Amino acid sequence: MITSLVTGGAGFIGSHVARHCLALGHKVIVLDDLSGGFEDHIPAGVEFVEGSINDVALLESLFEKHRFDYVYHLAAYAAEGLSHFIRRFNYNNNLIGSVNLINLSVLYKVKCFVFTSSIAVYGAGQLPMLESMVPQPEDPYGVAKYAVEMDLKAAHHMFGLNYVIFRPHNVYGENQNIGDKYRNVIGIFMNQIMQEKPMTIFGDGEQTRAFSYIDDVAPHIANCVNVPASYNEVFNVGADKPYTVNELVQVVADELGVEPKVTHLEARKEVMHAHSDHAKAAGVFGANKNVSLKEGIAKMAAWAKVVGSRASAEFENIEIEENLPQGWSKKEKAINS
Amino acid sequence: MITSLVTGGAGFIGSHVARHCLALGHKVIVLDDLSGGFEDHIPAGVEFVEGSINDVALLESLFEKHRFDYVYHLAAYAAEGLSHFIRRFNYNNNLIGSVNLINLSVLYKVKCFVFTSSIAVYGAGQLPMLESMVPQPEDPYGVAKYAVEMDLKAAHHMFGLNYVIFRPHNVYGENQNIGDKYRNVIGIFMNQIMQEKPMTIFGDGEQTRAFSYIDDVAPHIANCVNVPASYNEVFNVGADKPYTVNELVQVVADELGVEPKVTHLEARKEVMHAHSDHAKAAGVFGANKNVSLKEGIAKMAAWAKVVGSRASAEFENIEIEENLPQGWSKKEKAINS
Ligand SMILES: NC(=O)c1ccc[n+]([C@@H]2O[C@H](COP(=O)([O-])OP(=O)(O)OC[C@H]3O[C@@H](n4cnc5c(N)ncnc54)[C@H](O)[C@@H]3O)[C@@H](O)[C@H]2O)c1
Ligand SMILES: NC(=O)c1ccc[n+]([C@@H]2O[C@H](COP(=O)([O-])OP(=O)(O)OC[C@H]3O[C@@H](n4cnc5c(N)ncnc54)[C@H](O)[C@@H]3O)[C@@H](O)[C@H]2O)c1
Repeated sequence: MITSLVTGGAGFIGSHVARHCLALGHKVIVLDDLSGGFEDHIPAGVEFVEGSINDVALLESLFEKHRFDYVYHLAAYAAEGLSHFIRRFNYNNNLIGSVNLINLSVLYKVKCFVFTSSIAVYGAGQLPMLESMVPQPEDPYGVAKYAVEMDLKAAHHMFGLNYVIFRPHNVYGENQNIGDKYRNVIGIFMNQIMQEKPMTIFGDGEQTRAFSYIDDVAPHIANCVNVPASYNEVFNVGADKPYTVNELVQVVADELGVEPKVTHLEARKEVMHAHSDHAKAAGVFGANKNVSLKEGIAKMAAWAKVVGSRASAEFENIEIEENLPQGWSKKEKAINS
Repeated sequence: MITSLVTGGAGFIGSHVARHCLALGHKVIVLDDLSGGFEDHIPAGVEFVEGSINDVALLESLFEKHRFDYVYHLAAYAAEGLSHFIRRFNYNNNLIGSVNLINLSVLYKVKCFVFTSSIAVYGAGQLPMLESMVPQPEDPYGVAKYAVEMDLKAAHHMFGLNYVIFRPHNVYGENQNIGDKYRNVIGIFMNQIMQEKPMTIFGDGEQTRAFSYIDDVAPHIANCVNVPASYNEVFNVGADKPYTVNELVQVVADELGVEPKVTHLEARKEVMHAHSDHAKAAGVFGANKNVSLKEGIAKMAAWAKVVGSRASAEFENIEIEENLPQGWSKKEKAINS
């Protein structure tokens, strides 16, 4: 029997990947520290281990016990915008944690290491983003992701560890943590609407992103281990069509059946436009469903109405407060309240 | 008075940088954990603190107490070839340690952060290596160095922290740890000669490097803080002329007054040829002395004869033994002895 480790399997994308792995007939072990995930998102039929990818002794015992065929590594703290202000935490969690898994995957001769990187590796270069471009990430989150990509290539070269790297693009859908104020604009908007608050837009809302529905992403991640042509390659994955945040506001409001109310916050230092080319993934994995924004948002909205709004946890250990975007500082909150 | 922190100041390049900073009139605090450095290399007149860049509480107390104008960050474990086998240690020491210093340099508004990166960031691309190339490092040491470079750029963009990045090229000279079997071919050769052992060459010895004498490197690193045109720029630094390892063997033997004896080990996975272009540094810092290999080796040999040979410490926590180059494995030693 094929045995797979899915790190971050209580999180949004990871919970879907775990589900697809089960459907492929794998025995699935989910490792998640529940820092950003939810136990009730873990699909029935997996073995759940609560713990961190930074706990080397725990990892060693899991690799020794299960002799994983495949490692799907999705655990990360993915609040890109916050990463400037939590540099040490970012590199510890997202890079050192990954390296712990790479070491053990070499030692235990894992057949393929599947890693969710991010379009954050590209930085603000030419559009569309293409896998053939040499990445130039511009924030600590992107730097950590890119470092893991480079480390995987080095590990392949030195030890023959196979990998598949995905760079998903603004994924949304059911099981997303809509109570996280630091990331995922769609979840944030839904949560705000359900709390009868205005939707908060950084800047003028004319920044564009190609929001990608989870069903156009998770199946490829799960199945890539069965696609030898994908081994030791990097793939953009997600939707093709970019929308402005202002357009998104309208679709989300429509699907939740409300009139859009918005409030503008100061612009963040962020990439203004982003969309990826997906020809490479289509060539290897076949064409995507390309779920439309309206259809995807409708599905997510139906789910969000059932689970209801959530209070956002405060990130406790901000390392640098300077220039922290509006609404993210605890000090500011203390002053305002 | 200008106060500077020199991390790794008990090490080879750091001890020279500390000396040059003193000559520039700085008050100099050296922080070094002596993992690879020697207390007697620290120049008289500096304040020495024994401790690690991974000890955040210690760093906080030093920044709070001294309010550094400049941070010269040279502390690292620099055994590039070993980095494949000690991935976690490499990223912890060389990346997380650096990020600890970057955080505090932002918080305490350090005027300039000087960082010694490495030509390892370039990978095996076109020659000569040029600062205008986008790096593509191929081993964990190079990945960690490049990640720090990218993080510094992001910190500059977000917080205005000024930096100067140097990419030195195979530096040699007095104060080098000649008792380290994992790195610095020149020190290794001198040590072997003084122990009346043959010089060990990985592969056929036709790989080339532009070995750089310390006086062509350390003065620029120390003085760059006084050269505004160097701020927020990256510089190759070192010698222009590449030599083969076989040529090097001859020069080292000559200067130590012995007939060269060599033994060949299996080739390592390493870059075959490397030399950098130094036009950018020359334009900003002025022309180098360009100390010849013969002259530089003569000076280092005179020093080495005084200090004598050294036994190499064994790196204790190898994480992966597979493919470890000949002579580096403890297990192998146990088998052979
Ligand atoms: N959602 C996106 O649009 C997107 C885009 C690009 C890349 N990604 C990447 O995809 C992966 C999954 O993202 P997501 O959107 O599902 O985020 P998520 O926060 O929903 O899931 C991440 C999961 O990892 C867990 N986790 C975090 N740190 C951990 C640790 N140290 N040990 C164990 N578990 C830990 C969290 O508890 C959470 O369940 C991440 O690696 C992320 O960087 C996501
Ligand atoms: N020598 C070269 O050819 C060369 C080339 C390119 C870059 N560099 C870089 O220049 C810097 C200095 O290199 P070097 O050749 O002088 O090496 P070195 O080993 O002689 O000096 C490094 C010093 O850092 C100290 N150190 C290591 N980890 C530490 C930690 N966690 N906390 C505090 N101190 C720590 C060591 O004790 C040592 O004294 C390094 O960053 C290295 O990567 C060197």
